[in-house]
Amino acid sequence: MGLFSKDIKSLDDLFVHTLQDIYYAEKQIEKSLPDMIEKATNTELTNGFKKHLEETKGQIQRLEEVFRMHGHEPKGVDCPAIDGILEEAEEIAGDIADKQTLDAALIAAAQAVEHYEITRYGTLIAWAKELGRPDCASVLQKNLDEEKTTDEKLTKMATARINKKAA
Amino acid sequence: MGLFSKDIKSLDDLFVHTLQDIYYAEKQIEKSLPDMIEKATNTELTNGFKKHLEETKGQIQRLEEVFRMHGHEPKGVDCPAIDGILEEAEEIAGDIADKQTLDAALIAAAQAVEHYEITRYGTLIAWAKELGRPDCASVLQKNLDEEKTTDEKLTKMATARINKKAA
Repeated sequence: MGLFSKDIKSLDDLFVHTLQDIYYAEKQIEKSLPDMIEKATNTELTNGFKKHLEETKGQIQRLEEVFRMHGHEPKGVDCPAIDGILEEAEEIAGDIADKQTLDAALIAAAQAVEHYEITRYGTLIAWAKELGRPDCASVLQKNLDEEKTTDEKLTKMATARINKKAA
Repeated sequence: MGLFSKDIKSLDDLFVHTLQDIYYAEKQIEKSLPDMIEKATNTELTNGFKKHLEETKGQIQRLEEVFRMHGHEPKGVDCPAIDGILEEAEEIAGDIADKQTLDAALIAAAQAVEHYEITRYGTLIAWAKELGRPDCASVLQKNLDEEKTTDEKLTKMATARINKKAA
């Protein structure tokens, strides 16, 4: 979230600010996924990342819809959290030469990203309902459901196959 | 995770590195919680943060136990992810004058922290099992269970009371 000076005065302001936060985050994830696709070796994993890149584009469009439904232009604000999570993902990938170990690390990094999105969408949905915007909550719920499904798929991929190859 | 030069050569190296990552993260969280306790207004929330500070201290001890079980001295490595998550929490708290809105923001920030821990412990437990260390997995599971319980309590607190006061 951004550097302001006491300019969040209500839950509605906080909701819009957090929407801007996750909008920036989704756009950074969209930029990072092609690099993760390139680094991954396992075909199941590269296909999973490719599918999630397409989903991320749809999620960005849904966020733009929520902005407009709530009377705001889509806009991002700096989000040190996702920047830190993605920076850490890049660093760890750069530290690993062995391809199977790298795949295991890429899954872990992707799951850290998913969990950031899961917590932010969970919060936004709760706030939207409280603010009398079940319509916004319902659009955000679609993004949350996709993130949860992606996280579960990554867990299955890791525990059923990719970790075993790395061990 | 740290800046190294291809020095992670196996899943075992990656496990130890990620243990160092979450060890650093827990210690940063331990440093940040007193500030969140001070900023929170709602008594239920301050008590929740106080309880979690005590839990965090126990979790750090469990991590030290896992390091030793696995033949390593407890050590942290820089973790840009938790640094970013905590930086964002501080920034947003500094942007809000209204106490009820601040409480809602503090809960959201704390849940972002919990989700980072949940994803890292989930990964570490899967890797420990794969590496033939169910003993380490079982100690890490205690930390994961506590983080999940804390996250659920924060959700209940937010949706049952604190968001309503802020709206």
